[in-house]
Amino acid sequence: MGRMSGPVLELLLPVDRAANEPLHAQIERGLREAIRDGRLAVGAPVPSSRALAAELGVARSVVVDAYAQLCAEGYLRARGGSRTTVATTAATRAAPRSTTAGGAPTVAYDFHPGLPDLAAFPARAWASSLQRALRRAPHAALGYPDPRGIPCLREVLAGYLARARGTLAEPDGLLVCAGIVQGLSLVCQALRARGARRVAVEDPCWIFHRALPIHAGLEPVPVPVDQDGIRVAELDGIAADAVIVTPAHQFPTGAALAPHRRAALLEWAARNDVLVIEDDYDAEYRYDRDPVGALQGLASERVLYAGSASKILAPGLRLGWLLVPDALADAVATEKIHADLGSDVPGQLALADFIETGELDRHLRRTRRSYRSRRDALIEALHTHLPDAQIQGIAAGLHALAVLPSDTDEAALIANAATRGVSVHGLSWHRANPPTGPPGLILGYANLPESTMEHGIRELALARGQS
Amino acid sequence: MGRMSGPVLELLLPVDRAANEPLHAQIERGLREAIRDGRLAVGAPVPSSRALAAELGVARSVVVDAYAQLCAEGYLRARGGSRTTVATTAATRAAPRSTTAGGAPTVAYDFHPGLPDLAAFPARAWASSLQRALRRAPHAALGYPDPRGIPCLREVLAGYLARARGTLAEPDGLLVCAGIVQGLSLVCQALRARGARRVAVEDPCWIFHRALPIHAGLEPVPVPVDQDGIRVAELDGIAADAVIVTPAHQFPTGAALAPHRRAALLEWAARNDVLVIEDDYDAEYRYDRDPVGALQGLASERVLYAGSASKILAPGLRLGWLLVPDALADAVATEKIHADLGSDVPGQLALADFIETGELDRHLRRTRRSYRSRRDALIEALHTHLPDAQIQGIAAGLHALAVLPSDTDEAALIANAATRGVSVHGLSWHRANPPTGPPGLILGYANLPESTMEHGIRELALARGQS
Repeated sequence: MGRMSGPVLELLLPVDRAANEPLHAQIERGLREAIRDGRLAVGAPVPSSRALAAELGVARSVVVDAYAQLCAEGYLRARGGSRTTVATTAATRAAPRSTTAGGAPTVAYDFHPGLPDLAAFPARAWASSLQRALRRAPHAALGYPDPRGIPCLREVLAGYLARARGTLAEPDGLLVCAGIVQGLSLVCQALRARGARRVAVEDPCWIFHRALPIHAGLEPVPVPVDQDGIRVAELDGIAADAVIVTPAHQFPTGAALAPHRRAALLEWAARNDVLVIEDDYDAEYRYDRDPVGALQGLASERVLYAGSASKILAPGLRLGWLLVPDALADAVATEKIHADLGSDVPGQLALADFIETGELDRHLRRTRRSYRSRRDALIEALHTHLPDAQIQGIAAGLHALAVLPSDTDEAALIANAATRGVSVHGLSWHRANPPTGPPGLILGYANLPESTMEHGIRELALARGQS
Repeated sequence: MGRMSGPVLELLLPVDRAANEPLHAQIERGLREAIRDGRLAVGAPVPSSRALAAELGVARSVVVDAYAQLCAEGYLRARGGSRTTVATTAATRAAPRSTTAGGAPTVAYDFHPGLPDLAAFPARAWASSLQRALRRAPHAALGYPDPRGIPCLREVLAGYLARARGTLAEPDGLLVCAGIVQGLSLVCQALRARGARRVAVEDPCWIFHRALPIHAGLEPVPVPVDQDGIRVAELDGIAADAVIVTPAHQFPTGAALAPHRRAALLEWAARNDVLVIEDDYDAEYRYDRDPVGALQGLASERVLYAGSASKILAPGLRLGWLLVPDALADAVATEKIHADLGSDVPGQLALADFIETGELDRHLRRTRRSYRSRRDALIEALHTHLPDAQIQGIAAGLHALAVLPSDTDEAALIANAATRGVSVHGLSWHRANPPTGPPGLILGYANLPESTMEHGIRELALARGQS
């Protein structure tokens, strides 16, 4: 570079006097990029500050500043009286990674079972809640939060859960987390840290019920589910330290844990000193009667309750909550501290206001009505187009299970459906041992407009005809 | 209860016909509470639905509904023709835990080193950014987010970091996380999962630089820091798999990593194939010149960069970011999925808008000015009241280090200061081996009004007189 002519230097270091960026910063940026691109070779001398200043038509001090900065950053090396050179530590730029192109087929009918009606998310009310809550909160609220959650949200949530889910919730036992995934992850880590080894899980179940224990160093042990929920009698002999269940609406079968099983599960857990982890992911939605109250309300020192805003509002909020038995409360809070120091304050403030002002109840009333209509439209469409499907789990939640005749090729059906723009989950995806049990489809209906439900199911039936 | 008289029942089940809550729900709630309180004993029969309906003056179907609900929830047990009883699984309520009373002495002068000016948080602009971004975002944005962060924020952040910190940031290599704690936690877990055992850390350092590796099953190995930053020569022989450093402004000494050390560190890391983890927690604030560019910009495949909004905006946002070398990108993203599936979307949307609209730059300009004034006020107050303190690390960041004469009893000074309403961190708290090195105080100045700085330091001097 020391011997470069003016035009080359200008190409390398285009200095724009009209720009907002100071001249020395422009020169620094230009040199950094030239070094990274390899246009300035490692070890090569750079021009003297006097020469470069003259070439660029800037004050020499500007170039001196830029060189000093780049020396401090390690791009250049200045050694006493000799020429400043490009430092050997300066790397050349890696080839830019290609951005992932959206080459997947278009999804016209997405029956993903985990999504509420995203178009119904009350964005304006949510933003108002945030604005109001931020205005009211003391400045200190935006410092490092209480790792268990901000007190006002824990207070409001404890009240909401007691009222809506029949839990025994004291604000002290509540821990705010980033959705049920973080909640279960913290619990698994806390259990592992105190020596736990095995966690019984439902079979079939949500894949994270197996994945999170494994990730935490625990062994998930599948226990079969039937139309009454988890088969409690089969828990004996597993030597599990905990069991993860979905009593209100089993995922994915949709079964409610029968009263005799609820009693038997708690008796078994007490007898064997096992922690029951209740994943209450979608229990607010029950269409034939009031939601069945949480198991936690029966045995708050035996049952750890996990819930979230993902189904009642939106998964993107990443807001969840745990009700933790006293004996585990400190251990789970310690995991939360090491995970992220606490959940984000604006989201917590907004949720507290959103519940307190009755917005959540309003939203739940509205969506309960619309989800029931969507569910009915789904059932009708299934009766019409897939009459041999056996429909289960429709009393509650945001999805139904369509069990198909045993000769159905589930994988082929799902693949054919995808080519027709229908995205649907297979029942076998959620089984610990895929070949066992009948084939089926998990059909989330909450995020599909009623008007498109029939078209989607018709396409699914056509896909089946292809299989 | 079968033999309770009307008034007792009314006390137990006060039914309010004017309330919004349906009658059956009121009865359910009353019974649940009575069972939990032990007012209704386990195993005891409840009145027939006919008798209770007559007592309460409600339709029998209301009581039948309530009993059915409580049976489903496991509070009651109905067996064929015989009387419904309180189920044996129904627990009695645990004594409410006492809420933590605020008995700590009042803090009038909080020199906590981790806090920016919380009163300056631009709450209104932040809420506007959220509102605008929520309005513009497609509905689907509020579904499950990209675990690495929403694309628009990664794009905006990559640009900001390249411009403000001289990083080599492609949006693809960026991962949004819940503050630097989550970022480092994910990295430690990813390293541990691939067999790493030891992480070199600065001594003294931020306590989480030692705590997070330990929590992930790694051994932190302290390496001394002097006025030029970490002593790179002492890294040899440790057999570290990674090293965590704070090159721009060492925490807590405030030293900038000297150019020769930056070069030596990268050379050492390349020679030994060690990952350099750059914690760039407060580098946006530099008062004598432009901030020293990030080490990551010199060696993006060797250096993992961690930054956050905690110092430039507020820790309560819990927003941070990592620039992850290609070789580790998938492993860290996998940890993020198991940690929480991804960061909250509203916060990400708000931050992207906040940067794009220039609000962050405006905020940084404003706070740089005010922090410099606060820093100057602190230095002046120290000169006046603690003239033998040796002040270090004032060129950048949000805190200074006051090294005290070696005969100072640091612990006694801090305890006495607390009784005078002055909260301050000791240098020894951050050392791996507390007895080594001189005593000192870490003085965060960003969250203290200029006008109170002198009073706070005078109280500190008086506390020292007591020691």
